[in-house]
This record gives sequence, C-alpha cells and structure tokens, in this order.
Amino acid sequence: MTKPAILLDLKWENLTLDQPFREAFPNLEVLNWAKEEDRSAELSTVKYAIVWAPETGLLARFPNLEVIFSVGAGVDHIFKDTQLPDVEIVRFVDPMLTGPMVEWVVLQVLMQMRQQRLYDEQQRRHKWQELPQPSAPKFRIGIMGFGELGQACAAQLKGFGFTLNGWSQSPKNVDGVTSYCGLQELPDFLNNTDILVSLLPLTQETRGLINKQLIDGLSREGPFGAPIVINAGRGGSQVEADILSALRDGRLHGASLDVFETEPLPSDNQLWDQDNLIITPHAAAMSDPLALAAHVAQQIERHETGQGLQYLVDRKRGY
Amino acid sequence: MTKPAILLDLKWENLTLDQPFREAFPNLEVLNWAKEEDRSAELSTVKYAIVWAPETGLLARFPNLEVIFSVGAGVDHIFKDTQLPDVEIVRFVDPMLTGPMVEWVVLQVLMQMRQQRLYDEQQRRHKWQELPQPSAPKFRIGIMGFGELGQACAAQLKGFGFTLNGWSQSPKNVDGVTSYCGLQELPDFLNNTDILVSLLPLTQETRGLINKQLIDGLSREGPFGAPIVINAGRGGSQVEADILSALRDGRLHGASLDVFETEPLPSDNQLWDQDNLIITPHAAAMSDPLALAAHVAQQIERHETGQGLQYLVDRKRGY
Repeated sequence: MTKPAILLDLKWENLTLDQPFREAFPNLEVLNWAKEEDRSAELSTVKYAIVWAPETGLLARFPNLEVIFSVGAGVDHIFKDTQLPDVEIVRFVDPMLTGPMVEWVVLQVLMQMRQQRLYDEQQRRHKWQELPQPSAPKFRIGIMGFGELGQACAAQLKGFGFTLNGWSQSPKNVDGVTSYCGLQELPDFLNNTDILVSLLPLTQETRGLINKQLIDGLSREGPFGAPIVINAGRGGSQVEADILSALRDGRLHGASLDVFETEPLPSDNQLWDQDNLIITPHAAAMSDPLALAAHVAQQIERHETGQGLQYLVDRKRGY
Repeated sequence: MTKPAILLDLKWENLTLDQPFREAFPNLEVLNWAKEEDRSAELSTVKYAIVWAPETGLLARFPNLEVIFSVGAGVDHIFKDTQLPDVEIVRFVDPMLTGPMVEWVVLQVLMQMRQQRLYDEQQRRHKWQELPQPSAPKFRIGIMGFGELGQACAAQLKGFGFTLNGWSQSPKNVDGVTSYCGLQELPDFLNNTDILVSLLPLTQETRGLINKQLIDGLSREGPFGAPIVINAGRGGSQVEADILSALRDGRLHGASLDVFETEPLPSDNQLWDQDNLIITPHAAAMSDPLALAAHVAQQIERHETGQGLQYLVDRKRGY
C-alpha cells in the first residue's frame, strides 16, 4: 500500500529547509513541490498540504486532500486560489512569530519618533546637529488589528510611556489601552492616533482600508503635526498610491512598510526612493521551519485520533 | 541692597531658553553668560551657577559662589576646570532624561540586532532580500554603568527576551539581570556579552575603558559571530581609534555612538563614513529646561532653608 503524502509548497528559497518536515512526519511521504522530481508523485496519495501562496488550481489537483496548513497566521494568500477545494484550512499561530514581530514594530515606532532617518542623512553629510525631540509620552499609538500580536506590541510599547489605542472587530479589555471597535468607532480611533500600526489580516473588510480617506482621518495634533503609518500586516490592506502622495505632500510625516500590494516590491516602484519611507522585504517575522513542522505534526495527530483540528479558518470571516 | 544672582552657562544654542529660569527664580538676578550684556554684572553677586562645560577659571571668578549645578547627570564637564572653586556640586537627575535615554538605547539595540543598516542599504539599491534574523532571546546584552539609567534600560529590554547582564562598581540585585561587579569581574562580564551598552560616567577609572583590550574581551559566540558596542555615556570612555579598527577588521560587528572624544565630532573624522557605525550627535537625551529650572529651584529652597542639598557630587569618586 502506498504511504499517504504531505505536500510542501513553502516558497522558501532554501530547499534544504524540508529536512525538519521529513523528520516530523515519519509516517508520511514528504513531497517538496519546489523539487522537480517530487512533482511526478501520484496525486491521489496527498492527504495534507503545507502552503504559502499556492498557484491557482494546484490544491484542486489532489482528490484525497483533507487539510490545508497555512505557513503563516494569515490565509489570504490561500484564498487567492479561485479553485480552492472545500477542505479544512488551519492557520499557523507561532509563538516564535510574536517576538520578532514585536521587535520590528517597536524598532519602526522608535525610528520614526526619534527621527533616525534624519540623523542617518546628517551622518552621510558629516553634520552634527541635535534635533528637537519629543519623547514617547507625547505620542498616541493606534494599533489596528488588536489580537494576539497587537496586544503583544502594546505590552512592549507601554513601558516607554506612549498613549495606546487599539482597534478591532470585537471589543478588547486590555489594561492601559483604550479599545475602539468596528467601523463605527474607526473615525474616533484615527482622530486619536499620531502613529498608526497596522497588523490587520487581509479580508474583504480590510482590503484597501489604509487609503486617502483613512490617512486624512488621522490626527494632526501630534508632535510632528502629521501622522505616521506603520504596516506589518498585509500589503493588500494599503493603497500605496495614497500613501506615496500623502508622504509627498506632507499629510503623512513618515511611514514604515514591511508588506506591499505586490511582493517582491518591483525594483522600479517609486516607493523605494521616497524620503522617510522605511522599506523592509516582508521580513518582520519569519515562520520557523522547526516550529511549523511541530505545529503541523501536532494537528495531524489530533486530526487522525479524532480530537479535532485547532486554529481553523472561518471561510466566511476570511481569517 | 543688590539682589543675589544665579549664573547660566548652558551652552544651549537657543538663547531664549533662559526664560524658564527667570520665571523659576523670582528672587534671583538671572545672568545668562551667553549674552554679552549680562557679562558686565557685578561678579560678587553670583551665589549659584548652572553650567555645562564651563571655561577654565570662569567659576573661580565669583568670590561668593555657594553651589554649582550641573546641567546633566554627568559632571566630568565641570571637573575639566583645573581652577574649580571648592564649593558644592549638584548633579541633575532628571526623570525626563531617563525616558529618552531608554528610547535611544532600545532603538540602537534593535537597529543593530535587526540589521536595519543592511536593509537601509538594500532599500537604496531597490533590493528585496530577507536576511536570516536571530531573535532577541539569542542575544546577551551587557550594560556597563548599571545605575538608575542602566536599570531603566534593562527593564524595557527585558520584555523582548534578551539575556541581560549588568556591570557596576557596587553589586546590584535586579530581578532577571546577572550582576557583575568591579574590575575583577569585568572579563567574565565581557565574555558573556554580545551587545555592550555603556552608560558609564566619565571618571579616572572609566577614561578610555572601551579600548582594544575590552573589545577583544567581548564574546564572539553571539549570533553574528562578533560583538556590538553601543555608547550613550561619555565619549571619554571610548578609544575611537580602537573602535574604528575593530569595525574595519570585523572584530566588531557594529557600533552605535551618541558621544565622542571630541564634540562636536569634527567633520573630517573617519568615523562618519564607517559602515555599520550609527552616529547621533549627543542627542540620546537632552535636559529639559523646565525640569532643570524646577530642580535647581527646589535645591536652592532646600539649601536656603537648611534642609541640605541633594544629589551632591563626591569629588573623590568623581560623580
């Protein structure tokens, strides 16, 4: 009898990263879709798939597929597949992702509020000049997408003395953070935000949400007279043309983006050269192969022993 | 009878900053030494002085001087005056200084460990490439000068999951931080440090301490294979030629300096152009004029009502 198989379509550059998966699934054939030789396997053996941004129609080719595992916490990269088969989808909630994400968000908040890019420019020009520097208690940070990651960021930002606001679908009761909820309270949330941090998942509701209207709704009462936008969620939540034009005419004081409408960001994109826009290549937090393999192994164990899968995606909600 | 006077020698560019002092001392004549017209005042009226790096001999000219107030927490800038009169010296321990200092230190730690300068360079070249990224728990931070400021930095760094060590003259018992004490334990402290943060005051013991020998004593077992040095204390504690040569030959992976042997850093200094050396112009934390005026007013009140001065400098210890 043929061994059942698990498909890996990770889009990771380093092919040797499939080793932890081979070790984690001794009872499964591991098919690494990045390897030509693995693509000739019998499609009907594939019972599970671990994927990042699968090609449209790929997953529909496996008649016995039971569960799709997302490489990340987001699943919008899976829903792009218009021929997606109707099987369970499991998110990857990785404690190893939270720490790096908090590091990136705090780094970008501090770079923006401490005017690091201006100091970098002064260094290039050998210029010694101290800039007037408001401190953290003068800034109000608004975190959009106030789930596990957002709350971890808030906990770490709190110690600096920032004023903290959180915006989410359902009200959250977090000590020291003012909670705003739903589209109805969005204008009030924006009006109390000097530094916007987005950790939103990409859904129908969040697509294109960070646009001209949202930017113009942010407070201009902060220390710099214009707000700052930081996005570590999904590029699809932002309208880059609107961010660029707001940076150019001063409606935005600065921005830090780790995610983009098109990734990799094309090399001729004008964003690369925009002053006071800090670009990182979707590097805020990377899933750890070992942790991912352990997570999937645990869920397969639960699935096969009838305990039921965890972290299931609600298709209607979109995450 | 002539009103007693207080001398301001702040070395601040903005002369209008003396206004908070005029308001804080209604019973004193305020003499701003930066203003030509104030220099012709009767020297014998000066009872107090608030100074930053006073010219040698200046303070000796006031026969009735009772107390010297330092603009900062450090007082090495005062002891440079070889004709310093034998009067009390009061340090400025400003809660408003702690927050900005913590912001700067955390920003520099994160910029270094998250390889921000490499990402900046990639952005200039429109290059999209994720770098392997160890997270905070993989790094050991050693804080030299583990007093009030150092402990505030440790408290804020702790949440990221860094391993924390502190080095100071006297042993400190701080939860979650391994304490090293005195020159005897310095080698062990260095050998357990991947990222060195100096907040040392400048004294005879600390002058030139961050030199080749110290750099070579730092651990090379950290994630980058070479250590990082961050100095927000005093430039006199570092030997810049040794830091530069270690950055050039890879014995140091990176450095962030806010203070320098000569300030302002001369525009032809080679440090400006060194890769992975982040330079800021002694801007980590600036004394707030209002807070400084309030602090001095409070100490003068204590002095004149017989309650005694606080934050007195021990001349033998040097801080």
